[in-house]
Amino acid sequence: MDLQGLSVSTSPDINDIEEGLSFKPKFDASGLVTCVATDAATGDVLMVAHMNDEALRKTIMSGEGWYFSRSRQALWRKGETSGHVQRVVEMRLDCDQDAIWIRVEQTGAACHTGRRSCFYRKVEGGEGGAKLSFVDADRVVDPKTVYGK
Amino acid sequence: MDLQGLSVSTSPDINDIEEGLSFKPKFDASGLVTCVATDAATGDVLMVAHMNDEALRKTIMSGEGWYFSRSRQALWRKGETSGHVQRVVEMRLDCDQDAIWIRVEQTGAACHTGRRSCFYRKVEGGEGGAKLSFVDADRVVDPKTVYGK
Repeated sequence: MDLQGLSVSTSPDINDIEEGLSFKPKFDASGLVTCVATDAATGDVLMVAHMNDEALRKTIMSGEGWYFSRSRQALWRKGETSGHVQRVVEMRLDCDQDAIWIRVEQTGAACHTGRRSCFYRKVEGGEGGAKLSFVDADRVVDPKTVYGK
Repeated sequence: MDLQGLSVSTSPDINDIEEGLSFKPKFDASGLVTCVATDAATGDVLMVAHMNDEALRKTIMSGEGWYFSRSRQALWRKGETSGHVQRVVEMRLDCDQDAIWIRVEQTGAACHTGRRSCFYRKVEGGEGGAKLSFVDADRVVDPKTVYGK
């Protein structure tokens, strides 16, 4: 395929990253890639988080979601405390290999607030700026019982 | 709700960010939030990109996807060159307000390679490390005709 003239770089390396079948994840300056987890059944986005090299490898090898917590600077198996594990049905990566999408079977709640998804508020424009409203915001678990009081 | 004892910070500010209805997007050190765009019809993740304050506001007010290109350091209306615009059906934001999810009606291809989605390769573990394979990788448009030769 002739990519000459595209606004993106057309070096052989870029072509290999975009069109090749070698797994060469592009970690950012902090050593992380962005990972989007969606519900395999509904397509809803459950959470957006980060993986370092180790989290990515553990996710691939174990078939369960592992992440890297930027606030705690620690590897983190999703559900380790709560039991709300993620079984990975499929993992994909994007054209420039800096973002991961996993479709998962989520036990319980993906969100630490007890909601199924972290995306429980809608954003809408209006007079005086954007406003939020709750949507799908019912808690499926009580965070107090999950994380202890 | 009593969040005392959660492993996350339970300051009033955090509670306001997670449980409030004020839109207070948390931009990173580069002034960006992560945005996931999914196909409103299928739930497939089309792309993961970034928005700065202006891109976010323009998306909310226009109902079309705007982003900020980190490589070009420029605001970017999705489809400006290609015509492959994104009509936003719904925008949500996550618990800590640092990630955006938009469900969109995507014209043509979301990916600059001409595929419907940027996530056209699957990652699987195996002997000797992870391997990629193409999935949903047919081009819906020829990037040469879209971006010029």
